[in-house]
Amino acid sequence: MLTFVGLGLWDEKDVSFRGYEAVKNADKVYVEFYTSMLMANVEKLSEFFNREIKILERKDLEEESWKIIDEASKLNVVILTPGDPMVATTHSALRLEAERKGIKTKIVHGASIVSAVCGLTGLHNYRFGKSATVSYPYKNVISKTPIDTVEKNWEIDAHTLLYLDLHPKPMSVNEALEILLKLKNVENAFAVGLARVGSDNPVVKCNKIGKLISEDFGPPLHVLVVLAKTLHFMEFECLKEFADAPDDLKELVR
Amino acid sequence: MLTFVGLGLWDEKDVSFRGYEAVKNADKVYVEFYTSMLMANVEKLSEFFNREIKILERKDLEEESWKIIDEASKLNVVILTPGDPMVATTHSALRLEAERKGIKTKIVHGASIVSAVCGLTGLHNYRFGKSATVSYPYKNVISKTPIDTVEKNWEIDAHTLLYLDLHPKPMSVNEALEILLKLKNVENAFAVGLARVGSDNPVVKCNKIGKLISEDFGPPLHVLVVLAKTLHFMEFECLKEFADAPDDLKELVR
Repeated sequence: MLTFVGLGLWDEKDVSFRGYEAVKNADKVYVEFYTSMLMANVEKLSEFFNREIKILERKDLEEESWKIIDEASKLNVVILTPGDPMVATTHSALRLEAERKGIKTKIVHGASIVSAVCGLTGLHNYRFGKSATVSYPYKNVISKTPIDTVEKNWEIDAHTLLYLDLHPKPMSVNEALEILLKLKNVENAFAVGLARVGSDNPVVKCNKIGKLISEDFGPPLHVLVVLAKTLHFMEFECLKEFADAPDDLKELVR
Repeated sequence: MLTFVGLGLWDEKDVSFRGYEAVKNADKVYVEFYTSMLMANVEKLSEFFNREIKILERKDLEEESWKIIDEASKLNVVILTPGDPMVATTHSALRLEAERKGIKTKIVHGASIVSAVCGLTGLHNYRFGKSATVSYPYKNVISKTPIDTVEKNWEIDAHTLLYLDLHPKPMSVNEALEILLKLKNVENAFAVGLARVGSDNPVVKCNKIGKLISEDFGPPLHVLVVLAKTLHFMEFECLKEFADAPDDLKELVR
């Protein structure tokens, strides 16, 4: 059997009791930090669960995934992942491979950035459109996907959640905004930058992109929301209180 | 201080260690089942946390919210909520009220249906558009919001997550599809019905709406995804394996 256990957003304490039980009952336990990151490293996790835990690298999850599949055909294998498992497509591919070979799979869900941004910003969950990732330029070419997604979402008056590239190092809100501005003049659009979601002291700041770019968000991880062209008045009130939004954000309220 | 603790998706075991700690350190503990539901009732939760826990009704969260706010100005108050807190706007309103009175608030995130559907279906998180709720007819009028949302999402080729009404009783996928069909002839659109997400044996079925409507999903809670007009081939492969999708779903692959 192959069980994916979500570790949630911050450190080892964000795993659920159900997830803890799955780890206790496993024959083999792995963790992957490739698709996202946590404040807990493998040593801290091993201590918390009181078990040997091995790190899976990208190749273990992709080209050499047959090794884990083979193991899961004989043993109870648990793969720990930051956030909620399977939001990353790498996990779905692995689960697919296992199920096709007749190996039972299970998911123990964890807290995910996808829902956490709603709580921290006060933005309404049902008003988020498609999401996208802001990637570092590759061979000097910047992917247009994030700005295309924002514009598509604007067409249907939706907010856009933008994940920030993790490799080679976690991208800051400031770097992400710089990349967006190179793609399109969106200085006057409003956005919300979030840092260290899931910790005791997350930072949440809202402003026009042209101003937000000079804010200091502190250490990673960061994530970004580009607002829809209109806001519900409760969203505005929350952003003012929770994200120090300027008064001119009020123009968006419909 | 007012702390919102997410209980996750299924029962008492879905709370995180961080959430458990918050409950242990609280002076007063409440739970609300108005915005969603769990398999654990208040007795089970009280036993699990070994604490007295009181249920908050709708009026306690809305008209009479000042009572909780007043208490949180003097004591450490925890409100337990199914899923991830604050995805429901009722919670944001309460948090706003507290912060405005200078009361510190905190969120301990929990697993949410918003991300869990991705894992169970294999659908890509970044391809979901706006979400909506399918409500029971009110005074014989059916709200058009769900079908409007689906159509807007179709314009940008996005999937639609549809929450199902909980009051007076949890709506089934079948009832929800019947309502959608009354609003528009979408028999030939593909959808995925999910039941008991977060449990050890969730049910996930994909088919054309006209066929999905006669499937049996068993006991609540149910949730529904109406697919975009196109699918990534990995989404198709996953739906075939995880949701017993028919071969003609392949027509959607681009």
